[in-house]
Amino acid sequence: MSTLDAGLIDRFIEVVGTKNALTVEDDRTRYTEENRFIFKGVTPLVLKPGNTEEVAAIVRLANETGTAIVPQGGNTGHAAGAQPDESGDQIVVSLERMNAIREIDPQANTMVVEAGVILETLQQTADGQDRLFPLSLSSQGSCQIGGNISTNAGGVAVLSYGNTRNLVLGLEVVTAAGDIWNGLRKLKKDNTGYDLRDLFIGAEGTIGIITAATVKLFPKPKGRVAAFAGLASVSDCLALLQQAQALAGKSLTGFEFMPSIGMESVTHAFETVRNPLAGKHDWYVLMEISSTRSEQDAMEMSESLLHDAQEARIISDAVVAQNESQRQAFWEIRELMPASQKMLGGSIKHDISVPVHLVPEFLERAEPLVHSVDPGARIFAFGHMGDGNIHYNVSQPEDAGDDWYLTKRELINDPVHQLVVAMGGSISAEHGIGKLKRDLLAETKSPVELEMMRSIKRALDPNNIMNPGKVV
Amino acid sequence: MSTLDAGLIDRFIEVVGTKNALTVEDDRTRYTEENRFIFKGVTPLVLKPGNTEEVAAIVRLANETGTAIVPQGGNTGHAAGAQPDESGDQIVVSLERMNAIREIDPQANTMVVEAGVILETLQQTADGQDRLFPLSLSSQGSCQIGGNISTNAGGVAVLSYGNTRNLVLGLEVVTAAGDIWNGLRKLKKDNTGYDLRDLFIGAEGTIGIITAATVKLFPKPKGRVAAFAGLASVSDCLALLQQAQALAGKSLTGFEFMPSIGMESVTHAFETVRNPLAGKHDWYVLMEISSTRSEQDAMEMSESLLHDAQEARIISDAVVAQNESQRQAFWEIRELMPASQKMLGGSIKHDISVPVHLVPEFLERAEPLVHSVDPGARIFAFGHMGDGNIHYNVSQPEDAGDDWYLTKRELINDPVHQLVVAMGGSISAEHGIGKLKRDLLAETKSPVELEMMRSIKRALDPNNIMNPGKVV
Repeated sequence: MSTLDAGLIDRFIEVVGTKNALTVEDDRTRYTEENRFIFKGVTPLVLKPGNTEEVAAIVRLANETGTAIVPQGGNTGHAAGAQPDESGDQIVVSLERMNAIREIDPQANTMVVEAGVILETLQQTADGQDRLFPLSLSSQGSCQIGGNISTNAGGVAVLSYGNTRNLVLGLEVVTAAGDIWNGLRKLKKDNTGYDLRDLFIGAEGTIGIITAATVKLFPKPKGRVAAFAGLASVSDCLALLQQAQALAGKSLTGFEFMPSIGMESVTHAFETVRNPLAGKHDWYVLMEISSTRSEQDAMEMSESLLHDAQEARIISDAVVAQNESQRQAFWEIRELMPASQKMLGGSIKHDISVPVHLVPEFLERAEPLVHSVDPGARIFAFGHMGDGNIHYNVSQPEDAGDDWYLTKRELINDPVHQLVVAMGGSISAEHGIGKLKRDLLAETKSPVELEMMRSIKRALDPNNIMNPGKVV
Repeated sequence: MSTLDAGLIDRFIEVVGTKNALTVEDDRTRYTEENRFIFKGVTPLVLKPGNTEEVAAIVRLANETGTAIVPQGGNTGHAAGAQPDESGDQIVVSLERMNAIREIDPQANTMVVEAGVILETLQQTADGQDRLFPLSLSSQGSCQIGGNISTNAGGVAVLSYGNTRNLVLGLEVVTAAGDIWNGLRKLKKDNTGYDLRDLFIGAEGTIGIITAATVKLFPKPKGRVAAFAGLASVSDCLALLQQAQALAGKSLTGFEFMPSIGMESVTHAFETVRNPLAGKHDWYVLMEISSTRSEQDAMEMSESLLHDAQEARIISDAVVAQNESQRQAFWEIRELMPASQKMLGGSIKHDISVPVHLVPEFLERAEPLVHSVDPGARIFAFGHMGDGNIHYNVSQPEDAGDDWYLTKRELINDPVHQLVVAMGGSISAEHGIGKLKRDLLAETKSPVELEMMRSIKRALDPNNIMNPGKVV
């Protein structure tokens, strides 16, 4: 299938050695399949370089021969950004073997990690030094930090600690020319020219390959208290958020909202999971308050907040986790939302954001748009309320067939995304663009912005070898 | 002097109208002089556009005719980034008339401001809505937010709130082609392609002109307590910082250090200023703790911290401000450091940063380098310890003449900057590059990084009309 010359393939294999190159079809599936199974990629070759010099040698060869390469981390993305296309001419470069933790410096609160380090390993290593690496998302057991950085991953700790972008101090990058840029800085302040770091973060491997990073560590909170609340409306969720931020400021480290359909699905699908509250509610909020002072301090803040919110009739009911296993049980409910939604059949997803205070308005305006397409469609909206980031997913009606997803997808996507744009929102809050939303990006961005992105792409990757067909 | 054609000048004037264009020599001085009086700029024309469309029309004309333009805010920068060169062929575009606050949205915690808004006006407007805009620096009475953003300004609140970069959600920019990019977003999360916002922030007007911005507001702390401590060494200052961060986390909103020579100069030069501590100390720390809960909470944190630090013999003496005027008096000492240093005569300055925990090591290693050039040179190092940002200034010996600065500047600059680079630091932590450090940038950055910057400059400003001769 591939039109790549066998001699050329051999030259690429030579860089990493035969045992670090996959050429047999079966071996390569996990590098070509993507999360949503919408696109089917094909590749003649998966390369697994063991160090930065090998990555640079691969890119130089690709540049010299005009061969397209696709950098890949844990391949857990939701936007089809890390798979080859269908041509069979794109070579996958997996960073998985570059998984060393080069340095951990608890005094500087930094760690230098290679791109292939699994996020969970990074978290655990920091924890072992009594430090926190706050990035936290459901695929953390298999996603890699290089992919997290290349997609500027979000997750459940953004509210207090920011996106991945905010957790990175420096980068090591192999440029599209095959040069190595050592930008592994540990500085809080550095105003020396253009911000290349932030340009590579979130660029999804289209202008270079991130091979290592200096990441920030944080003091581990001394206390962390989770609370679970039932509420009557999204407006009440917003009111609770504002009250929590006013009281706890940056100590509010998590604020997730979930719909009643989510609670029903998750308790139905997973026998061990139960609703922490006695009654049913239209909305649920999982919120977490952390204290740098003490467990008691976090508990006092949480209780004082819930007391005030109950007085103000913002929440109907609430419960505070009394120990670590209860805290984890609360989070499990949130983390199982996507899996439980899968049980409801086909799902049309939107990873969108709006200004935080407009979340209720967005949900109110989006609902009739969805139901005018299909009155039986089940809206399953949840996510990172504190960031204005809604996973605005729509499950098929109970009686719908397997083709529902395909026939309704565009009909529902289009008005939802138009509403997002009209409300000043983002059509990809945390999952990125990849191949999935490349056309949507072109439709929703201004020509001025698109042209600047394309100019940068042309300037930094003139031969268009870096993950072509993605983002821009 | 200028070789610009009179007809061309008239075309530029036509865009803004005669009364918004300065052509008489005397009028233009404040637009051509720079802070340090090292460079003498000349311009035939200062334009003061009144809106974004006028800025765009100016840039289009400049692009069409290959005329160099120099965007300018309050002209308070320390790196000669906002003045024309000596050719007389560069036109200054002052944003001062674009000083509208377009929107303030306390619920969203955002404000949309035009580039020419004075920083202090912005702070006060936020304050009037019970919100905090934390950017705070000594020139806030005259610097403009557009300049702050274009230089990614630092200041005294970076420790908790970050640089200007971290305070900006969206931008409106006139590109070098004269197009208007409306990127005035209010989103906490937006993963849609390359991070153009962060590229323009800190680019010092070399790839476009920032005309407006959406900035973040914060809840106003309910309590804010300043403490002033005397310490025996910089290592003790670092130990105090670490203790304060462990206890207060993000509630530690300020941590500045000053040397004994600073306290002596400032109390000597300004009669109304007095040392808050009874005795003399080798080092002083001004530290501020803010609470989103209450004044009492901030006070308790401060006292508990100082108690622990005194127990651990980290601090020799300390006093907590008992009211707002005492708090301001503490800050005045810090803010008068540069002015008091001026009284000591010529000064060779370095705006550098190193990883925070290396501040003591840097000072220890830099001292013999300076004194080997001139044993009488007086090291006057102060600044934002919490960010690793040292204003490593060197005052002339007491008996030195007026030529000291010129004869010693390079001899002292070179080894100091070499040490900074060797320690993984930045040669411009917060002041930017401008014209002052353009050559130094080329000497200290890797060729790979420089070439990427130049590629971006060429791609976004192919005719090199945007602030040429600055940064790259």
